[in-house]
Parts: sequence; C-alpha cells; structure tokens
Amino acid sequence: MKVQTLYGPVQEDIVLVEAQFDLIKQVELVPLAQMLDHVLGAGGKRIRPGLALLGGTFGDYDLDKLVPLAASIELLHTATLVHDDVIDAAATRRGRATANHLYDNAVSVMIGDFLFAHAADLVARIGNVRVVRLFARTLMKIVTGELDQDVGAFDASKQIGDYLKRIGGKTASLFATACEGGAIAAGAPEPYAEALRDYGHNLGVAFQIVDDILDFVGDEAVMGKPAGSDLMQGTLTLPALFAMEEAAGKAAITRLFGARRNKAALLEEALAIIRSGDAVPRSQTVAEEYARRATLAIESLPDTEGHRTLDELTRYVLMRES
Amino acid sequence: MKVQTLYGPVQEDIVLVEAQFDLIKQVELVPLAQMLDHVLGAGGKRIRPGLALLGGTFGDYDLDKLVPLAASIELLHTATLVHDDVIDAAATRRGRATANHLYDNAVSVMIGDFLFAHAADLVARIGNVRVVRLFARTLMKIVTGELDQDVGAFDASKQIGDYLKRIGGKTASLFATACEGGAIAAGAPEPYAEALRDYGHNLGVAFQIVDDILDFVGDEAVMGKPAGSDLMQGTLTLPALFAMEEAAGKAAITRLFGARRNKAALLEEALAIIRSGDAVPRSQTVAEEYARRATLAIESLPDTEGHRTLDELTRYVLMRES
Repeated sequence: MKVQTLYGPVQEDIVLVEAQFDLIKQVELVPLAQMLDHVLGAGGKRIRPGLALLGGTFGDYDLDKLVPLAASIELLHTATLVHDDVIDAAATRRGRATANHLYDNAVSVMIGDFLFAHAADLVARIGNVRVVRLFARTLMKIVTGELDQDVGAFDASKQIGDYLKRIGGKTASLFATACEGGAIAAGAPEPYAEALRDYGHNLGVAFQIVDDILDFVGDEAVMGKPAGSDLMQGTLTLPALFAMEEAAGKAAITRLFGARRNKAALLEEALAIIRSGDAVPRSQTVAEEYARRATLAIESLPDTEGHRTLDELTRYVLMRES
Repeated sequence: MKVQTLYGPVQEDIVLVEAQFDLIKQVELVPLAQMLDHVLGAGGKRIRPGLALLGGTFGDYDLDKLVPLAASIELLHTATLVHDDVIDAAATRRGRATANHLYDNAVSVMIGDFLFAHAADLVARIGNVRVVRLFARTLMKIVTGELDQDVGAFDASKQIGDYLKRIGGKTASLFATACEGGAIAAGAPEPYAEALRDYGHNLGVAFQIVDDILDFVGDEAVMGKPAGSDLMQGTLTLPALFAMEEAAGKAAITRLFGARRNKAALLEEALAIIRSGDAVPRSQTVAEEYARRATLAIESLPDTEGHRTLDELTRYVLMRES
C-alpha cells in the first residue's frame, strides 16, 4: 500500500493539516523559521493526524475542529521528538560533549517549547475542554514514559512488562488520544470514542514494536539512521529483551553496555547475534497480537469507509519497512 | 512590608496552591521527586499565583477554579525557568561543556516538560476554554521572548524598544495572564478583566526592570547569585543599555563581550562603571513609570481589599531587594 492512499476518506484533508504547519513556520526570526521548516518538513507519514481525522469520521466530520486537533497532535509529537534529541544526547555523548552540542540543545529546547505552545493553542481553539484535558494527560504520559526510559537506561534487568508500559506512555498514549480526540471533537457517541481509544492504544503499541524491530533489521538507507541505535543508547527494546533471554544474546549485550571503547565492533557483534536468533520473529508475533486487539476493539463500529481504512492501517503498521 | 502579608485577602489561600505542588511532587521515581522538590521548593514569593488569586477577588472567588489556575501559572513559570537553564548554558559555557552539563540538560528538559504537562492539566480542569487559550498564547509569548533573547545575545546594537518588547513577552505576559485569568475564571465583568490584564502587564515590566537592576546592584548573598550574570551571558538589560549610551560604559561592555579570557576582571570593570553612572537611577525611573501605569490601569475598579493589595504589591515591586 502506498503511503499516499493510506488514509482513505480523509487523505485529502491531510493537506489542510500541512497548511497549519506552514502558518506556524512563518515566523520573523530567520534561524527559527529554518529550523521549524526542518522539524515540520513534509515527508513524515502523518499517521497521528490521519488517525485524528479518521476518528472524526465516526461523528460530525467538522474540519474546523478536526484539522486543529490533528495538527496539534502532530505538533505535540514533534515537540517531544525534538526534546528527545537533548535527552538522548546525554546518554550517547557521555564525555564527548562539544560546544556545538550545547548550542543544539538550547535550540532544541526552545523549538520544542515553541511547538508545545502552538499545540496548546490549536487544541484550545477546538473549544472542547474534554479534548484539552485529554491532551494534557497525554503529554504527561509521554513525559513520564521518557523519564522512565532515561532512568532505566543501561539497566539490563528491565523486563518486558516495563517495556510495554513504557511504550504505552511514550507512543501508544498519543495514538489513543488522536483516535479518541477525533471522535470527541466530532461529537461521536461515547462507546465509539472508547472503542477508538482502545484501537489507538493497541495500534500504537504495535507501531512502536515494529519501530523497535526495524532498528535491528531495517534497511539503514530507507530508515535514514544506523541500525542498533537504541542498543547503542543503552535502551533495551523488545527484540533486545528477547535476545537477553538466551546466553549468547545476554553476553553480547552485557559486553556492549559495559564497554568504554570499541563499541562499534561490539554493537555489530550484538546485532549479528540478535538477528540470527528468534528475538525478531517473537517481537513480530507480539506486534501482531496488539494489531489483532486493535482490529477487535473497533469491530462493533459501523462498517464505514473510515472503519475499513483503520483496519487497513493496522495491516500497514505490521508490514511497513520504514 | 513582609512577604508573608503581601497578598492581603488571598494570603492564606497560597497554602492551597503549595498543596497542589506537594501533590505533583509525589511521583514514584525518586530522582524525579527530589528534583521536583528542588525546583518547586517553598521560598519563592509566589507572586504569580498571588496575582491570579487577587484577580479572582473581582468576581466569584471560587477556590476550585482559582487554585488550579494559580498553581498552573506558577508551574508554567517554573517550567520555563528550568528550560532557561539549558538555554543559558549554551551562552555561558561555550567550549567548556562537560558530560555532567549534558546530563543536567536532559534532566532539565524532562522536568520542564513534566511541569508543562501538569500546568496544562490544571488549567484544563478549570473548564474554561478562554482561560486555556490565554494560557497557550502566553506560553507562546514567553517562548518567543526567549528565542528573541537568544538570537540577540552578544548583539550590542539591540535597542531599548527591543528590550521592553522582550521582557513584555518573557515576564509581563505571564503577569498579565495571571491577573486576567483570575478575573475570567471568577467570571468577573469583562472591563475588570481587561483592566487587570493591563495592570499585570505593566507590573510585570516594572518587576523585570527591577530584577535587571538588582542583577547590577543587588546584594549577592540576598540574591543567591553573582552580580552581572546577565552581562556575563551577553544579555543587555535596561541598565546596560543605558550604560552603552556613554563612552566609558560602551567601551567596558564591548571589551567584555569581545573577550575570550580574563572575563571575570572585565566584568568587574564594567560593573563598576555601570554602578557609578546614571544607568541604574534611569532604569529605576522607567520601572516607576510602568508601576504608575499599573496603578492607573485599575484605578476605576471597586475600592476593595483586593484592589488595595494590588496597589501595595506595585509599591513592593519597586522597592524589593531580592
């Protein structure tokens, strides 16, 4: 399936969401405008805005409410990504700090806050206090997920339950809010909103597991980043946790985490071991289970084009390559 | 006047705002709890919550709405302060970065985001969309003010108009929102809300000018930070801008900004020149003018205890020593 047609009946309205970003990019300060253009640049899949709009198809599909909601969710996501750059830098650049990184940090903090501000403004424009609260609580879950990840870095004893809880906060909460927020903003019946929230949560977990799998087996050229970056930062994702259950995987990962030099070679060793074992297929099975739950969550919703598009999205999330 | 009695009729309700912070500090992660305790620790003047509560005295003084508002405004303020640490680090620690600073940065970003999330949640609880929008727009102004300050660092050509615009965004916007937000949350008449916004803006400008004066002439022990920190970071505040208008001041500041070493001695020279000239009294006169405007802004409001307390606060802001 092509990304261009991923969002079925709301596909064309994604353009309106992009137009909101174009407005935000029009700031006086040239360096800021350039950086906003970079972080908000087209090319992303815009899956969160797509989910918000699709959630809205189950009620009164009012673009005046749904476009600001969809845009605010993507802005919130982008803000946390930008701030993650600073947070991850601390883990990966230990002892190799440069003035340039410090400057980057300052810019990242400001750009992230700027995006938070616009996200809050857009969500307030919808005029629905319930959506605002949903939004605030989601931000809290994302941040708490980040905090948990940071404190847990380099701790090999983290278990799979912790992992699922963490990605529930870090990724799935915003997927859930996109779907539920769209339904609420459109005044959809309450059971629909709950079902869509459930769908979004499970889809988000599946999405993140696939993301974590791709970090081990994805094509670096397609991904645009080197393989094994999570492991290099000391973060144990699902494939690594499964690999830790076997002696060879545990030894390789423990060596990598304990090393002060020669880390690139140790990473390659660990990657080779993880790829050759059953950690990746086991992870894929877990992702499929969450995708199944997503499909079931909305099973009783009307059989609309929006519904069918959500089901197709679920299948796409499992087989995506980037 | 003692700080303890600064807030007149709402003085005792500040305790309820502190209780909100105590709730937020109760998080599972111990390092996070400790850091929250540090940044939200008692001892602050809590002027912004005080203003929000005082604004509420001009309508239906409902603590269920005003306490979350007051707390959310202080949280927003604290979040931006915490993020400022990262932003300022880039300016002052050029080329002297350490891994420790990078770690601090990551923590600062996360704590700030965590506080933003709680601020958004509290403001949403008030159930008033107008307050939420006010809040979002204020965050935008604060962030834009920060961005402007960062881009303008080390640029001696910045003029006084730019300075006033900058502190209008960075400080006065939140003072204005505290006062106006309190009035709106309490359902006060529209002209009252507007007058209180005007009061808050002018008080905020006066407050920030006094803050900037204290950075030059304040008692370091009382302030808890070294004198001249703004200048050391390359930020030209009002006293420095006035000093730049005279040859000796301009030469001293230009030397300091251009120096790569011996900066401590050059700072002392610049401080001595600025303190001996008329830059400080001229700045104080500008602060007094804004304080006068604050008093005038609410002149036609009912002569209540809340009103008298706001007038006393205005006098306090001008003569405070820390």
